[in-house]
Amino acid sequence: MNLFILGVTGSIGIQTLDIVRASNGDFNVVSVAANRNVKKMKEVIEEFHPSFGSMGKEEDVQILKELYPNIEYGYGKDGLLQAATYGKTGTDLVVNAVVGSAGLAPTVAAIKKKRNIALANKETLVIGGEIIKKLLIENEVTLIPIDSEHSAIMQCMNGEDKKNVSRIIITASGGSFRDLSRSDLKKVTVKDALKHPNWEMGAKITIDSATMMNKGLEVIEAHYLFDMDYDKIETVLHKESIVHSLVEYDDSSIIANLGSPDMRVPINYALYYPVRMPYNGEKLDLIKVGALHFEELSYEQYPCLKLAINAGKEKGLAPATLNAANEAAVSLFLNGKIAFLDIEQIVLECLSIFENVEIIDLDMILQRDEDVKDYVYRKYS
Amino acid sequence: MNLFILGVTGSIGIQTLDIVRASNGDFNVVSVAANRNVKKMKEVIEEFHPSFGSMGKEEDVQILKELYPNIEYGYGKDGLLQAATYGKTGTDLVVNAVVGSAGLAPTVAAIKKKRNIALANKETLVIGGEIIKKLLIENEVTLIPIDSEHSAIMQCMNGEDKKNVSRIIITASGGSFRDLSRSDLKKVTVKDALKHPNWEMGAKITIDSATMMNKGLEVIEAHYLFDMDYDKIETVLHKESIVHSLVEYDDSSIIANLGSPDMRVPINYALYYPVRMPYNGEKLDLIKVGALHFEELSYEQYPCLKLAINAGKEKGLAPATLNAANEAAVSLFLNGKIAFLDIEQIVLECLSIFENVEIIDLDMILQRDEDVKDYVYRKYS
Repeated sequence: MNLFILGVTGSIGIQTLDIVRASNGDFNVVSVAANRNVKKMKEVIEEFHPSFGSMGKEEDVQILKELYPNIEYGYGKDGLLQAATYGKTGTDLVVNAVVGSAGLAPTVAAIKKKRNIALANKETLVIGGEIIKKLLIENEVTLIPIDSEHSAIMQCMNGEDKKNVSRIIITASGGSFRDLSRSDLKKVTVKDALKHPNWEMGAKITIDSATMMNKGLEVIEAHYLFDMDYDKIETVLHKESIVHSLVEYDDSSIIANLGSPDMRVPINYALYYPVRMPYNGEKLDLIKVGALHFEELSYEQYPCLKLAINAGKEKGLAPATLNAANEAAVSLFLNGKIAFLDIEQIVLECLSIFENVEIIDLDMILQRDEDVKDYVYRKYS
Repeated sequence: MNLFILGVTGSIGIQTLDIVRASNGDFNVVSVAANRNVKKMKEVIEEFHPSFGSMGKEEDVQILKELYPNIEYGYGKDGLLQAATYGKTGTDLVVNAVVGSAGLAPTVAAIKKKRNIALANKETLVIGGEIIKKLLIENEVTLIPIDSEHSAIMQCMNGEDKKNVSRIIITASGGSFRDLSRSDLKKVTVKDALKHPNWEMGAKITIDSATMMNKGLEVIEAHYLFDMDYDKIETVLHKESIVHSLVEYDDSSIIANLGSPDMRVPINYALYYPVRMPYNGEKLDLIKVGALHFEELSYEQYPCLKLAINAGKEKGLAPATLNAANEAAVSLFLNGKIAFLDIEQIVLECLSIFENVEIIDLDMILQRDEDVKDYVYRKYS
């Protein structure tokens, strides 16, 4: 199988390469794209010998070109599209682990090239769900989620009829600040926010876990992935991150997916889908874990969750507005420009300022993404 | 679908009728068999109009004959076989909810009649697993478990390849005495033993849950149902009885089946298999449950568990010896003839006295069952 790995130097990209490394030649890494990590990109090129590489900036590509002149290169947004569509269509899988809305256009390009998608970039479905779903059908392309929650839900539906699903229950660890009160949250620092209790992830998603925006985006993602009405998608606080999600059927049975937190398990599942291939992860020891806890995930504690679900229900450009405002705000928070609780305020502000539009296409989504981010950066930088 | 319900007046039989009642004519109750409960049998006949009825004793059949002369009747062991094989073969399902080893011969007869089986009588597989498996293949008959644990395991394997299963984890509530020490167990009464913390079941299985013999029998049952080596079957103490069992795959993922304890869910699943039909049971509220606990199921606390697994591994007549000794001992305990801890002693004694024989047939199993029970009743009554 030919792999096209977008976001190859990020957390999911690196763990995807762990699976490739262990696969004894099941995969051929054809193209790779990264944003800024030249050092890691060098290691990737030396070990996996891709035919095409892309970086965010042209100057970084120049460094690589001198070292590895036999590879083709691209950069920026176009480079990402080229990485997704490089070469002839064959038995292909595009692993999209780009961070943020930048992941949408390459997914669209890959689908049009009739390449299956392993999707870690949830923004693809959050902001582009309506257009992506049509494209998948038109091009007969399969899209497999890499998110642990969505991989779990998919696994819980194996061999079942979707029409029997009565409820999807998405679990949430609660993020870095799950034990803090709303007033404590006023004082938290970037360093505090980046300490996730269970998962080691990139900075953006770790902050999104702390605000619970991540869970809101996952609800929208689940809505599109599984054709599920929002009133059938619930969330629950589950601090241990052992139960990755659950699916309830209309006979009152629940099927759940459990495991030690390790993203290589859902990556492995997505890479080999529909076959379940062995992966020697840490086996879950229920006796050692001792107890699995479930609590209400409060909209008061986590207003971003409610903002996201409401935007998802509104459809049109509302999810793109929400997501762009959040991306910009999180970036400002990570750079020390705003406080943690400003994130939700900025998202709320953008949702009230930027009007929703019902029927959308790719250009409108990307334009809205740009407009909202411009607005936030201008006002709060 | 034509139903042949053996053990119709017991806990599983009555709950099977609940499903039939709610099914709006999906099922036709053709034959019913009970042991001693004439009162309940009358109600069943009046509501479901079976064509054939059987009771344990001839005198009870006489009572029914006078009231309902248009029905055919049988009694005793032969009546049970007649109930399982009554009429022409069509779209049939024999629900075997007989208590104890008496359930084996009717299962064999039903399979030979090419009738699918919904099995609540675990003894069928515990003592007859080796012959049943061959018969199922020869007669192209499907056997669906009704036990909540085995139904859970089956559901966790939907759409999966059995060769990828690395472990089956069967949960156990711990039974009536899970919080007592071994020395406390010396003094427990029948009344104490019959108070199961989570499930309302018949007396025999409630005692078996307290000794954990039930879980041992379930391990043997799982071995035969799922073609699983004993070293791939584990047990875990799970006091809430919410997680009905779990299956681990060789990619380190675990699929689990959860739900509020209600036997009508697995009965509904077995009756409609392979279709999952709606059943409006109590929906699981994870937030209300709050926590799911898992502890080691200790062989020291529950020696019957180990005795059963060892007998299962020995194969041949060892499981029949174990089961017969246990059935007789539990009966004596329920009748106040022996103490609770005598049950395990009697099982151990019989396993050492009655020699194992490797290759077996139905008659040998039934003979061993009789011999062991005779021995126990003679010595301890």
